[in-house]
Amino acid sequence: MTLALKGIASVSNHFADRLIAKCNEIGAPVCVGLDPVFNRLPHSLVKNIESPDDEPAVVHAIERFCNRVIKAVAPHVPAVKIQAACFERYRSLGMPAFFRVVEFAKSRDLIVIADAKRGDIGASSEHYAAALLGHQNTPQYDDPDALTVNSFMGTDGLQPFMERAANLGLGLFALVRTSNPGSALIQDLELTDGRTVSEAVADLIAKLGDQPEYVGESGYSLLGSVIGATQTHTINDLRKRQPHQIFLVPGVGAQGGTAADVKACFKEDGTGALITASRSIIYANDDVNDEAWEEKVAAAAKQFRDDVAAVLAD
Amino acid sequence: MTLALKGIASVSNHFADRLIAKCNEIGAPVCVGLDPVFNRLPHSLVKNIESPDDEPAVVHAIERFCNRVIKAVAPHVPAVKIQAACFERYRSLGMPAFFRVVEFAKSRDLIVIADAKRGDIGASSEHYAAALLGHQNTPQYDDPDALTVNSFMGTDGLQPFMERAANLGLGLFALVRTSNPGSALIQDLELTDGRTVSEAVADLIAKLGDQPEYVGESGYSLLGSVIGATQTHTINDLRKRQPHQIFLVPGVGAQGGTAADVKACFKEDGTGALITASRSIIYANDDVNDEAWEEKVAAAAKQFRDDVAAVLAD
Repeated sequence: MTLALKGIASVSNHFADRLIAKCNEIGAPVCVGLDPVFNRLPHSLVKNIESPDDEPAVVHAIERFCNRVIKAVAPHVPAVKIQAACFERYRSLGMPAFFRVVEFAKSRDLIVIADAKRGDIGASSEHYAAALLGHQNTPQYDDPDALTVNSFMGTDGLQPFMERAANLGLGLFALVRTSNPGSALIQDLELTDGRTVSEAVADLIAKLGDQPEYVGESGYSLLGSVIGATQTHTINDLRKRQPHQIFLVPGVGAQGGTAADVKACFKEDGTGALITASRSIIYANDDVNDEAWEEKVAAAAKQFRDDVAAVLAD
Repeated sequence: MTLALKGIASVSNHFADRLIAKCNEIGAPVCVGLDPVFNRLPHSLVKNIESPDDEPAVVHAIERFCNRVIKAVAPHVPAVKIQAACFERYRSLGMPAFFRVVEFAKSRDLIVIADAKRGDIGASSEHYAAALLGHQNTPQYDDPDALTVNSFMGTDGLQPFMERAANLGLGLFALVRTSNPGSALIQDLELTDGRTVSEAVADLIAKLGDQPEYVGESGYSLLGSVIGATQTHTINDLRKRQPHQIFLVPGVGAQGGTAADVKACFKEDGTGALITASRSIIYANDDVNDEAWEEKVAAAAKQFRDDVAAVLAD
């Protein structure tokens, strides 16, 4: 099994093509999730902060932490996913820091996914698309490469994201089967036609994403799907329903999914998924007093890449 | 039919009780949605802006517009719903303006709903709850009174919002049946047990919200539902499934729902819904050159209140 895909080069401006080329360059389709939380930061970054209520200092520490994690993992992974909620928490201080971290990750040649799970009726989705994908004619230095979106409101709510992503060479990942345990109560419900809710959502996403203007030279759409690694019971079915969607697969590590669990997310040629680990990498060092934490983060990212490469080679 | 509900006074700190008391004071359960868009602002507010790329000037104009709408409608409606996407569009400039508008609306004694439709796994929802409901021990001057949340990820993703809302005396409205046409492709799908997806979501929201610690003296939960006014085929059923949820009902006006359409959202005693109109009120004046636009906005809000009161009295 090979990671190479039909000789896709990075010259294509299509998001899926760019992502695949970058994964090939690094050697495995993996992504590190940045979910920075103040009380888990290394001591060396927070030792001068007197109170967690000192929000400017806290946000500054979070930004420094993210940038150091990015430096540590950039040689080993093709992509990072940045959790918007961790920044939005700090209101007017937070989102500027979020975009600075996006900028820093892009400067390190990483593909950057904004994990914001936005979604609304079309008129409002257009604003969210402008916010999180960008609103100039070309991507700017701090525009993310891709965005996660919520599918619950239907495909008309996703259309403005699609148009903007297509115009800018950017990507989307729509929620299809999320990693959290409680998601089963909605997403696994069985329909009269034999599908589950997730499977029906998968079909809608495939239909929307597989329109010719959204598909790259790689055969993949700019619209991918979020499929939790923990949902092993349904991944095979979703994979068949979505031959042209790249799966963004969270849930590995802290949420319980293993690298082996995710093999079903790939197609037989070893393409079609981007496996994400967050807390198990960025907090690889349990000891907040260890000054060598960046080395442990780098080692965890390298190990993660090697684990996924081994699963694909198996 | 009367709007009064069991003599609920505003002394209760529970969100539902506060909302009902305020609706009784004003005379109808109505809400004006603030979805400010630059190219629809009155000429007098934008005449000195040379380019829509001058974002500080644009955000300033949007903020002034919102504040003037708030002044115009505050005598006639109990609540406003502010669309986060319209502000988030402007990144670091936008969300500070959003919270200043929240503050201004609260200073005018309006109940303020942040329409942000957030939702994620629990760990991330906790951050969103801190961002949009507040992260001090008591609500601050710029914390919204309530927040819209997305139900697709299941109730474990909603739990952190619930806890924070309960602690702060704030409220939530979870998406159950949205107003956009494409929502039917997911939310109206039929399950093997005879329910639709929306009805199943309604049952989950009721089960979560109706735990005793979440229910106020009014009998309503701090967790309400978003039910589009355009979904007349299913509103009766949803109303029966959710006797303790206040329905936030968008879709009136620009999206096509009429005041009469929404009667089914109310229980027989005339309680249980907050009817929202957005573009039809804030852009009541089609002529952007009319200097008297605030009077037209005020008149539209008063008419909207009277229309809903008449439906309830009918």
